[in-house]
Amino acid sequence: MKICVLPGDGIGPEIMAQAVRVLGALDLKLEMEEALLGGCAVDATGNPYPEAAQKLARAADAVLLGAVGGPKWDALPREQRPERGLLGIRKDLNLFANLRPAILYPELANASSLKPEVVAGLDILIVRELTGDIYFGQPRGIETREVEGTLQRVGWNTMIYAEYEIRRILKVAFEAAQKRGKKLCSVDKMNVLECTQLWRDIADEMAKDYPDVELSHMLVDNAAMQLVRAPKQFDVMVTGNMFGDILSDEASMLTGSIGMLPSASLDADNKGLYEPSHGSAPDIAGKNLANPLATILSAAMMLRYTFNQEEAAQRVENAVKKVLAQGYRTGDIHEPGTNKVGTREMGDAVLAAL
Amino acid sequence: MKICVLPGDGIGPEIMAQAVRVLGALDLKLEMEEALLGGCAVDATGNPYPEAAQKLARAADAVLLGAVGGPKWDALPREQRPERGLLGIRKDLNLFANLRPAILYPELANASSLKPEVVAGLDILIVRELTGDIYFGQPRGIETREVEGTLQRVGWNTMIYAEYEIRRILKVAFEAAQKRGKKLCSVDKMNVLECTQLWRDIADEMAKDYPDVELSHMLVDNAAMQLVRAPKQFDVMVTGNMFGDILSDEASMLTGSIGMLPSASLDADNKGLYEPSHGSAPDIAGKNLANPLATILSAAMMLRYTFNQEEAAQRVENAVKKVLAQGYRTGDIHEPGTNKVGTREMGDAVLAAL
Ligand SMILES: CC(C)[C@H](C(=O)O)[C@@H](O)C(=O)O
Ligand SMILES: CC(C)[C@H](C(=O)O)[C@@H](O)C(=O)O
Repeated sequence: MKICVLPGDGIGPEIMAQAVRVLGALDLKLEMEEALLGGCAVDATGNPYPEAAQKLARAADAVLLGAVGGPKWDALPREQRPERGLLGIRKDLNLFANLRPAILYPELANASSLKPEVVAGLDILIVRELTGDIYFGQPRGIETREVEGTLQRVGWNTMIYAEYEIRRILKVAFEAAQKRGKKLCSVDKMNVLECTQLWRDIADEMAKDYPDVELSHMLVDNAAMQLVRAPKQFDVMVTGNMFGDILSDEASMLTGSIGMLPSASLDADNKGLYEPSHGSAPDIAGKNLANPLATILSAAMMLRYTFNQEEAAQRVENAVKKVLAQGYRTGDIHEPGTNKVGTREMGDAVLAAL
Repeated sequence: MKICVLPGDGIGPEIMAQAVRVLGALDLKLEMEEALLGGCAVDATGNPYPEAAQKLARAADAVLLGAVGGPKWDALPREQRPERGLLGIRKDLNLFANLRPAILYPELANASSLKPEVVAGLDILIVRELTGDIYFGQPRGIETREVEGTLQRVGWNTMIYAEYEIRRILKVAFEAAQKRGKKLCSVDKMNVLECTQLWRDIADEMAKDYPDVELSHMLVDNAAMQLVRAPKQFDVMVTGNMFGDILSDEASMLTGSIGMLPSASLDADNKGLYEPSHGSAPDIAGKNLANPLATILSAAMMLRYTFNQEEAAQRVENAVKKVLAQGYRTGDIHEPGTNKVGTREMGDAVLAAL
């Protein structure tokens, strides 16, 4: 069980340190090795996904990532920005299936900006395609052309999906729905985009093979509304890379505690990259303030999906539930009457709960 | 002051009837003529934007639209679906600037799924580009090709913006911000899409000409989150057609009373199409249940933007505020202790309040 550990930028190293401690306490034969990805890799090598990281990530069974990016690297040319490292590793490892749970922990219900009755018990799984769509589609670029009689800059990108890409992500989504509430909502914009008309057609064709799953379709604008209006109507949602980027972030924020939400990005053989849903939070980096629980829960997802260690995964998840019940809170989820702790102390509490 | 009236489908004719009554009571020299758009036009002529509507709409100073679409027409081929009528008239009349206010009326604060303190006093204006982007970009289509050694269907669309398109919508947005809270948030996905990198570059260039407006940039995934987390941070938001479709619907739904929200779609000379932000609600069509206020408020926007009749616009808006204060509510915004009325009775109440 080889794990490539990529702490990344901002709060990445701090939260990763706690996840590594938790994994180390599990009595599993885990080999962990570190490399640089993102802004720190740009600083050290000029490349956000340098060769050392590529080698280690390819050879590993799973990758555990902290977070990448920060204002320090915003002015760099496109190809050197930290997020290119993230896009690069996703594509390089063929991690086409991004699983993002949006779960509201009962102890943290107050953190939501939504009314308690709207979000209590929320448990949605968003399945986002991660290696296709307008993120990687060609042609793309900015160039100067003659438009309406004058020379002008024009910028363009290509949204594109081939049948096999749509089938394999829908398969993941149908199977996830079978293991959960058996409801799958596929999100598209078929009334405008041919690309997503194909998506809907294929979903309908595949539905026959999953008679136990109730498939529905929703337009992306309506989905953005329904997530706000009545999010508990959803069980599993599946959509393309671009719409999934938007909707999964919206869904996470419904909980108000994005510092709690893990994610998994899998290839066809359950090799995966696991990372918290939140960003690198450069403003609080290095201050022992960040919430390490999303990273710890990402490690639990890794144990489940890549290593098939369901028991160990549940041990970690239960330890997280226990520290919440005990009242431990980092600043992002703190409220009066609970015990405010730092990143390390939260790690200590999870270890104790294990 | 020539108005082309397009009642459309579903609840369209009922809500339009009330807006027409209100306009008729204003002592303005308004000429109104009706035509078919959407599903009703498909039924009558086979074309969702038939020639009669084209002629009337082109010759008019403004277009007032009810709503289009319904399940009845969902199985038709692409080119005959009601929404093609809507896309067709937008493009035909060059209505590139879509203005969508998301306003929370104090009397309706309970209707929101968000906590009162998060949305009280909400007043955002979303400016969405409406005639470009991936909605109209070429090439597009679905075809069978050889992909990875087999014949497969592939679907694709093109996201594209030329400089002049970006400049003219940003101008509308900067000017709108000048007349409001002087804050403009431009939404893009510049870290992934070249098309929106150009958008951000041009916004930065133009900012110099609007020193009184504070311009900020936000990535679309973050914008979808921030609208849920803390929507009152926004004054005016501007974005492209696709992201605007998603974010403006999300923003409307924050109020919980989308039956109250009007919209305007303008060309470069303030000719405009005005329509409620909600859909055609076929399930309640013909039952005197629909809320006509968004259509009435759309008529008020028309008086303001196209006809420069600020006083008349405010008269209508004040009448709507008055009926809310008096406790009149259609089913969509009804709560115990208020006076539940039908579509026609709501129109009566607005007329009385005028
Ligand atoms: C950093 C960025 C390229 C990335 C994306 O858009 O996929 C991020 O927003 C995410 O969702 O993981
Ligand atoms: C009906 C549809 C084509 C349309 C759009 O996507 O623009 C609608 O959702 C809207 O926002 O007016």
